[in-house]
Amino acid sequence: MKYLCTELERTWHEEIPISKAMGIHVVEFTNDTLTVRAELAPNINVHGTAFAGSLYAIAALCGWGMTWLQLKTHGIDGSIVIADGRIHYERPVQESIVAVCRFTTTDQADALRRLESTGKTRFVLDCVIAAKGEEAARFTGDYAVRINKPR
Amino acid sequence: MKYLCTELERTWHEEIPISKAMGIHVVEFTNDTLTVRAELAPNINVHGTAFAGSLYAIAALCGWGMTWLQLKTHGIDGSIVIADGRIHYERPVQESIVAVCRFTTTDQADALRRLESTGKTRFVLDCVIAAKGEEAARFTGDYAVRINKPR
Repeated sequence: MKYLCTELERTWHEEIPISKAMGIHVVEFTNDTLTVRAELAPNINVHGTAFAGSLYAIAALCGWGMTWLQLKTHGIDGSIVIADGRIHYERPVQESIVAVCRFTTTDQADALRRLESTGKTRFVLDCVIAAKGEEAARFTGDYAVRINKPR
Repeated sequence: MKYLCTELERTWHEEIPISKAMGIHVVEFTNDTLTVRAELAPNINVHGTAFAGSLYAIAALCGWGMTWLQLKTHGIDGSIVIADGRIHYERPVQESIVAVCRFTTTDQADALRRLESTGKTRFVLDCVIAAKGEEAARFTGDYAVRINKPR
């Protein structure tokens, strides 16, 4: 798991350069939860709080990372695309940005079953950003995965 | 108008550092349309197309910039917050990212009337990102504006 998290961070920073500028890092990955973190400074806005666009991007990457980790742990070579995203901002974030994505093992199993039977699947992931122990923003993304064809 | 566009860019790059990393610039501002642009390279993803998080952030900034320009042209000292954002991705962007926000003069007048009578207002702005002449992504944001109290 530790190796995969390092590999995920490397993929983000090398292949999505703005994720490096945002300073996103993996905090922890258990089977159904991925936690990521970015410092406030590179993501600050005119109010001295986290920029709405950074919160969205970090949450979207958290969901993408959760999907990427699922594919890697199951040895699947697939492409991940975000088809749709929504975010509701509840309160400002004045501290490090921590996003948490949960993907229940039941939902994982459903998605993997569809992926294996049809070569593609689509599912919804929620990512929550908390601040001072309360929910500050909630992101919902529609992720589409397709198995890569051998070249 | 030209001066205000330069001032908007300066505000973004100095006070929202990630907007500078994304390379967002103002292309044009007429009374009801703001067009912004960012090169693909700093916003690229693992597929070699524009990162979904960058598309959202650039569109959200375009709506924020439209609102900021409205306040400036009317000499209003106000704070702008994004309360909610949605984006639908239709097709990948493989070129410079160009976002366009339209705010009809009727909707502007309504928002300004509410702002002047109550000290706050809220409205919805759409921003469209096109690629190869077709709509590639459509962002919708709920913007909340409040007049700053004298200190």
